[in-house]
Amino acid sequence: MTTISVEQALAGHVAEGGEVTVRGWVRTRRDSKAGLSFVNVSDGSCFASIQVVAPATLANYESEVKKLTAGCAVIATGTLAPSQGQGQSFEIQAESVEVVGWVEDPETYPIQPKAHSLEFLREVAHLRPRTNLFGAVTRIRHCLAMAVHRFFHERGFYWISTPIITTSDAEGAGQMFRVSTLDVANLPLGKDGAVDFGRDFFGKETFLTVSGQLNVEAYCLALSKVYTFGPTFRAENSNTTRHLAEFWMIEPEIAFADLNDDARLAEDFLKYLFRAVLDERGDDLAFLAERVDKTAVSKLEAFINSPFERIDYTDAVALLQKSGQKFDFPVEWGLDLQTEHERWLTEQHVGRPVVVTNYPEQIKSFYMRLNDDGRTVAAMDVLAPGIGEIIGGSQREERLDILDARIAQFGLDASHYQWYRDFRRYGTVPHAGFGLGFERLVVYVCGLGNIRDAIPYPRAPGNAEF
Amino acid sequence: MTTISVEQALAGHVAEGGEVTVRGWVRTRRDSKAGLSFVNVSDGSCFASIQVVAPATLANYESEVKKLTAGCAVIATGTLAPSQGQGQSFEIQAESVEVVGWVEDPETYPIQPKAHSLEFLREVAHLRPRTNLFGAVTRIRHCLAMAVHRFFHERGFYWISTPIITTSDAEGAGQMFRVSTLDVANLPLGKDGAVDFGRDFFGKETFLTVSGQLNVEAYCLALSKVYTFGPTFRAENSNTTRHLAEFWMIEPEIAFADLNDDARLAEDFLKYLFRAVLDERGDDLAFLAERVDKTAVSKLEAFINSPFERIDYTDAVALLQKSGQKFDFPVEWGLDLQTEHERWLTEQHVGRPVVVTNYPEQIKSFYMRLNDDGRTVAAMDVLAPGIGEIIGGSQREERLDILDARIAQFGLDASHYQWYRDFRRYGTVPHAGFGLGFERLVVYVCGLGNIRDAIPYPRAPGNAEF
Repeated sequence: MTTISVEQALAGHVAEGGEVTVRGWVRTRRDSKAGLSFVNVSDGSCFASIQVVAPATLANYESEVKKLTAGCAVIATGTLAPSQGQGQSFEIQAESVEVVGWVEDPETYPIQPKAHSLEFLREVAHLRPRTNLFGAVTRIRHCLAMAVHRFFHERGFYWISTPIITTSDAEGAGQMFRVSTLDVANLPLGKDGAVDFGRDFFGKETFLTVSGQLNVEAYCLALSKVYTFGPTFRAENSNTTRHLAEFWMIEPEIAFADLNDDARLAEDFLKYLFRAVLDERGDDLAFLAERVDKTAVSKLEAFINSPFERIDYTDAVALLQKSGQKFDFPVEWGLDLQTEHERWLTEQHVGRPVVVTNYPEQIKSFYMRLNDDGRTVAAMDVLAPGIGEIIGGSQREERLDILDARIAQFGLDASHYQWYRDFRRYGTVPHAGFGLGFERLVVYVCGLGNIRDAIPYPRAPGNAEF
Repeated sequence: MTTISVEQALAGHVAEGGEVTVRGWVRTRRDSKAGLSFVNVSDGSCFASIQVVAPATLANYESEVKKLTAGCAVIATGTLAPSQGQGQSFEIQAESVEVVGWVEDPETYPIQPKAHSLEFLREVAHLRPRTNLFGAVTRIRHCLAMAVHRFFHERGFYWISTPIITTSDAEGAGQMFRVSTLDVANLPLGKDGAVDFGRDFFGKETFLTVSGQLNVEAYCLALSKVYTFGPTFRAENSNTTRHLAEFWMIEPEIAFADLNDDARLAEDFLKYLFRAVLDERGDDLAFLAERVDKTAVSKLEAFINSPFERIDYTDAVALLQKSGQKFDFPVEWGLDLQTEHERWLTEQHVGRPVVVTNYPEQIKSFYMRLNDDGRTVAAMDVLAPGIGEIIGGSQREERLDILDARIAQFGLDASHYQWYRDFRRYGTVPHAGFGLGFERLVVYVCGLGNIRDAIPYPRAPGNAEF
């Protein structure tokens, strides 16, 4: 007798006729008039559950098996046999069905075998992984995360875990969360009457990081190819379907590289990830295609087969102005592109992913490399059909004199950036990188409408139970 | 002409006599009387640098090559040839050496080709990855992180990113960092005069997580095998060589499992990780064995080849009491084991890794499963020679009535644990898991004396530059 996962049982890891044990939770039970019960058992190892055929001859058939409801935990042992049910390879003809855990008050069990609203499921985040949808999202999220690490590892990148608690604001903008151990009922004050952060845990005012990019750049100038994959934080009102206060970000950084290298890396990267999901999570994608997003499979296949288009920002503005399309937001050189503009470019104009490059310097960050025209920077946004911007990146300003001027121009406190300018004094090289929000990727792949469904425990103002 | 990494060049990815380009940073330069310069170039792809042989016939030989100092960035192109130098497979007979970035004021460049104190290097954390030691630590850290994900992925575990910002204290103890967007100069007060966290970002008082365990347990009861790998935080005085305020933790959780399954998983896991480092980072381990810890290789090999011993806590106390050893801390049933006791058990008594099980209930956490004796819990600590405790784990209390009693017994606010008790009402099963600090692993493998050297940017009170 071998204990195996439902995935292994369905994939025939044990020969037909073999004795197996599976362990999991009941999805449904159906009793036939012939004196048999069909109990579908899921263990989360794959999308499908396995059918356990329980005969009336089981000692606990009347007392237990016929009382099984959704969510009960069972250990089923029996013979692996070809399934007569449709769409299933194997079933288990049970010799025993042990009930490990009952469901208290089955009538009120929140995860009934029926459709639930996503709003409701967000309120029971600790139970929603038991649903088909969140099982699928969790497995796809895992598959994407593994592919992220594998992609970089195979290409000689090193993973760097940059600081979460930080004193500097990588973007020079954006609302940050303060991290403190000071007693709010009794804040220490300095002579000037202001709070004395010198007495806080780190002896300074500290915040949650908004990006690991600046930190990882220093590692790039030693190890050539590096990346971050860790949580980042924005204290902006996240009560929208597109923003999270806490999200995971991926930020590769490459040395001896320019914006072209960066765009190529972004293209290879996204295609590798989507290929992995198609190869490894066909079961979950098929469910999503049926219930959530008809294009769940086809959009990934189309993406993989499309060479990315490149458009200069200046050309993109001209195209948008000539489009004849009515937009809510103005289109004008010097203004940032809005999602509606991005989606027109990638969906209507090109019909495949687009890299828009060389944005006006004043709408981008201080660390992006100034182009020779003096009015644009070597920045890029990767736009994908169906979602708009999915990656933002740039070549970094490696020239110390220009970086110093940019820090001043943006009105930043130069003392916060001493270490960042410092490594450019020593063997500076052209380098570039990009960043993407991991949950945005999950939203895109799964076709989710709300980014809070792409993270294991949703979080939003007013909802921090977990 | 192919651009390749130093690792690829040394490994002979291009045939001897092939034209290659490598890009990196100068480690050393030596000029021979024969009118040649030997420039060692490192790009961080592996421990070794490659020797670039620059002849005096290069157009920039006098003007540039002979001025190269440690840290300068170069692009060298030439023929890959067998090296006459010792210990090197190949060298590059250069046809061009382009200097991309000079070192400003070489005399004061902090990373000279000599030994540096670790204290000094912590002050220049953005430059220390350029040293041999921190290059090695970074690559080993990466290797371990990849092996963590690979181990779990190969065994059907799913990665769950549990919340970083949380309202609950998983341990029921431990100092936490507060996360807030309230204006400290103008805190909103409630009617009772206390700070009104209802007006904070999440409408509640929130903290940085100390552990993802409770959150991941809910996913375990849906997906059977799950793990976390993410940052956790403890606001304890971390100004020691063993504690970090911010560190990455790994927490697997398995369903239908008891403490024995948990101990087996821990053993398989650690051996898998150390096997990966031996297989993949022999170059860095050899350096560490030479300079940092003579046993860098042998201790990992011994670990892999040792079956773990199991000792009941009660027996361990008896052994310690009979040992004749003089300890600083008392040994008595009911007291926790200190590092000196742990090390005696694993190093002196057994001479290999030990799993100590079944600790007194009052010194362990509320969520650990009460044994039938009523006075111990199904907890385990894995002790390793040279470090002591490296993993802590337990079977979880899955019985709702006992869990409720334990929450009350520990004086915890039951309202914080409603969701945690809730999923035990529905198909509860025996489950178990463990946790280990990722930096502790790095410290152990690299033989480091201070845990702040195991994290890319060291952090301690008074040092939060980054």
